[in-house]
Amino acid sequence: MIRHSVIFTLKHATGSPEEQAFLRDALVLTEIPGVENFEQLRQVSKKNDYHFGFSMEFADQAAYEAYNVHPKHVKFVEERWVPEVERFLEIDYEPV
Amino acid sequence: MIRHSVIFTLKHATGSPEEQAFLRDALVLTEIPGVENFEQLRQVSKKNDYHFGFSMEFADQAAYEAYNVHPKHVKFVEERWVPEVERFLEIDYEPV
Repeated sequence: MIRHSVIFTLKHATGSPEEQAFLRDALVLTEIPGVENFEQLRQVSKKNDYHFGFSMEFADQAAYEAYNVHPKHVKFVEERWVPEVERFLEIDYEPV
Repeated sequence: MIRHSVIFTLKHATGSPEEQAFLRDALVLTEIPGVENFEQLRQVSKKNDYHFGFSMEFADQAAYEAYNVHPKHVKFVEERWVPEVERFLEIDYEPV
């Protein structure tokens, strides 16, 4: 199991329609084969400067790589992630 | 639900007995009331410089605050976390 996550901050104002549209449209990622346990989360710790998190799991590295190059993922990154995300950090976990 | 997590890097060498002892002894945190779904994870993304993650869930803010001041947590932080952890980042999630 690989748990892929990203914490990020949008360029949009908190609570704005643009913010809500981004979160809603990001659900397209759940349509990609291999994506399991997809979660959208609000980052609330004051000890870092990110506002949201996405988390998903893949059965193995092959499923993760297929996701990375899937046209729906590539399109979302190009058309929404790059223009609308201010900063982000990717974290990938495997069991110890 | 609050999912509290921390990504971190130890001062110990990878695979060393000291690293294993730290991970093993950190399981004391699971004895603290309110700690649910505790996980120890290996951080494998090359896009950040952290090696491990701990993740746990609390039913609510009161359970989280009780954990923070619990003597077993305070003792672990003072005696193991501070001297043995090189760098870390805390992330707290709530449902969107």
